[in-house]
Amino acid sequence: MKRRDFLKKAGVGAAAAAAATTVNAPFVHAKKKIKWKMVTTWPPKLPYLQTGAVRLAKRVEEMSGGQFKIRVYAGGELVPPFGSFEAVSKGTVQAGSGAAYYWAGKAPASQWFAAVPFGLNAVGMAAWFWGGDGLKLWEEVYAPFNLVPRPAGNTGVQMGGWFNKKINSIDDFKGLKMRIPGLGGKVLAKAGGTVVLTPGGEIFTNLERGVIDATEWVGPLHDYIMGFYKVAKYYYYPGWHEPGTVLENFFNKKAYDALPKEFQLMLDVATAETYNWMLSGFNADNGAALEKLISKHKVNLVRFPAKVLDQLRVLAGETLDEIAAQDKMAAKVHTNFKKFQKQVGIWGQVSEKAYYDVIAKKYSLKG
Amino acid sequence: MKRRDFLKKAGVGAAAAAAATTVNAPFVHAKKKIKWKMVTTWPPKLPYLQTGAVRLAKRVEEMSGGQFKIRVYAGGELVPPFGSFEAVSKGTVQAGSGAAYYWAGKAPASQWFAAVPFGLNAVGMAAWFWGGDGLKLWEEVYAPFNLVPRPAGNTGVQMGGWFNKKINSIDDFKGLKMRIPGLGGKVLAKAGGTVVLTPGGEIFTNLERGVIDATEWVGPLHDYIMGFYKVAKYYYYPGWHEPGTVLENFFNKKAYDALPKEFQLMLDVATAETYNWMLSGFNADNGAALEKLISKHKVNLVRFPAKVLDQLRVLAGETLDEIAAQDKMAAKVHTNFKKFQKQVGIWGQVSEKAYYDVIAKKYSLKG
Repeated sequence: MKRRDFLKKAGVGAAAAAAATTVNAPFVHAKKKIKWKMVTTWPPKLPYLQTGAVRLAKRVEEMSGGQFKIRVYAGGELVPPFGSFEAVSKGTVQAGSGAAYYWAGKAPASQWFAAVPFGLNAVGMAAWFWGGDGLKLWEEVYAPFNLVPRPAGNTGVQMGGWFNKKINSIDDFKGLKMRIPGLGGKVLAKAGGTVVLTPGGEIFTNLERGVIDATEWVGPLHDYIMGFYKVAKYYYYPGWHEPGTVLENFFNKKAYDALPKEFQLMLDVATAETYNWMLSGFNADNGAALEKLISKHKVNLVRFPAKVLDQLRVLAGETLDEIAAQDKMAAKVHTNFKKFQKQVGIWGQVSEKAYYDVIAKKYSLKG
Repeated sequence: MKRRDFLKKAGVGAAAAAAATTVNAPFVHAKKKIKWKMVTTWPPKLPYLQTGAVRLAKRVEEMSGGQFKIRVYAGGELVPPFGSFEAVSKGTVQAGSGAAYYWAGKAPASQWFAAVPFGLNAVGMAAWFWGGDGLKLWEEVYAPFNLVPRPAGNTGVQMGGWFNKKINSIDDFKGLKMRIPGLGGKVLAKAGGTVVLTPGGEIFTNLERGVIDATEWVGPLHDYIMGFYKVAKYYYYPGWHEPGTVLENFFNKKAYDALPKEFQLMLDVATAETYNWMLSGFNADNGAALEKLISKHKVNLVRFPAKVLDQLRVLAGETLDEIAAQDKMAAKVHTNFKKFQKQVGIWGQVSEKAYYDVIAKKYSLKG
């Protein structure tokens, strides 16, 4: 059935190519068409995360003159959201899209390629991938799973979360029930908090009913859509636990290796271009959403006290060291990450910190 | 001659395509090959600026299976460096690479697409282009010149420059002879300084001999190559005059429009991907170069006093308003830029400023 469908479409394509005489008609044509499936971990239409995957597929199809088609399935449409890693690993489908920290149970080292508490921000992660060893190490971590990873986007610095209790000292985390998965959750637990794992669709109600005291999500754009401002007192920043979360595409290695070199490169280049597009869109839209949250919904924006963040930084360091102590590959990645963070760290203070402190200070919250 | 050469190469390509039987052999083949020339404004081998153009050409060639070739000429190889805009505008060649502020004399509005004193940084410019009206406006500014512009890279926040006189107050700019072109130079002149326009190759000697008191260049990587640390006392930051300089590719509109849609998209996607790659490389390498400048060459790193920057900000605002008052298109771009800067401004303080202040503060220069 699928095979027949494939041949039928290929036939149509060949006819179209034969009819092409004008300059702008399809210019390239393959000997055979390639059709891939991509399974994401995202709900349909989730801005930037799901729409980024759809946009990528469209670009690859257009660049290849319709010869390389990727059909994108949202989480649950073909396989469960968190089944995508395994489906691509086994070759059931050729491609997936998610965030590497979802696969912590399979490979602890994977977490460093998504978000490290007190780690690198969006430009820092990009510098590690494309100007350091980040991407090479990521490939090494995914190789045993028969997967090729590619950085596909970044949310930018996330927000600290929505709280119904005020955080004045580290002790205020004691007993705090917070929806915060991953490494951030491990750090919260170290601080005495209780991590509650709540599916996205139930967070609002749980926060409203006091089942949880706090939740993190993404940033102003996505948080606005979730409506948390209606049921939470304080909107904390910055997202120390996710300072620049990387989204990923991953490809089945055999399928990727079997691609013509041109199509491999189209995938790689278009995925890297999506990183830029996604971060740009997040920044533009987060700016607009934050403005609306502040001026229209009078959200109470609060920065975590510096001392609390210093204490969380120590706990985060302990958490990362503990994971690295139990897994060789995680240790290797952790060491490289720390070294690179130092390499760009002082430069970040001289360049971007100074930019926000003194060049862009006109927009300072305190006037 | 050129035509014959073209046909000969096309023949070779066709033979290769016919011989291709394995999966990894060239998969796509065009009805005719396309050959472009790109003239840049850069010296041969200049890291990231020239090498980025060469990298782009290679990617487009590989994605198109060798069907779309762009031969890249460094500044002066085919046309003088600053002749590239006109050469592409007239269609002598199909593509160019530079920075939009070079064309201030032809279109004052062009300056907003390269670097605005006290304007947007690298992620901010990207957000304006891909998440705001920036790219659309840029296309409008270049349309009368028969050119299609594309953001092709970013240097990140530049450094303030190398000084042999200390800047303690705005008055210290009075009589200061500084090599600082463009809008930054206009601001310096307003502060009472003397702008000296020195070709790149002569800056070192002029600084050494006291012909100039100060010079700006790019950032640690490029400044290190120039050796300024040998002849200047102070290395000032941040580069208020160029907080995130955008590099550009521009294409002759007729040539661009005549491209098959696939090749147009390859150019666009690969150019946008270069933005990401270049910024990443700059950040990684600037970090390493700054470390070397500080620890090996004991460079005296100094931040401009906050008050001086506040005063320069006012002068920069006046400069931009004056240009906008004299040119309708510049006024339109200026208004849109300011509005967007405000949109992402508060968000930048909540996200990236907080990141550098409290998440990455471990790398603070003051410990």
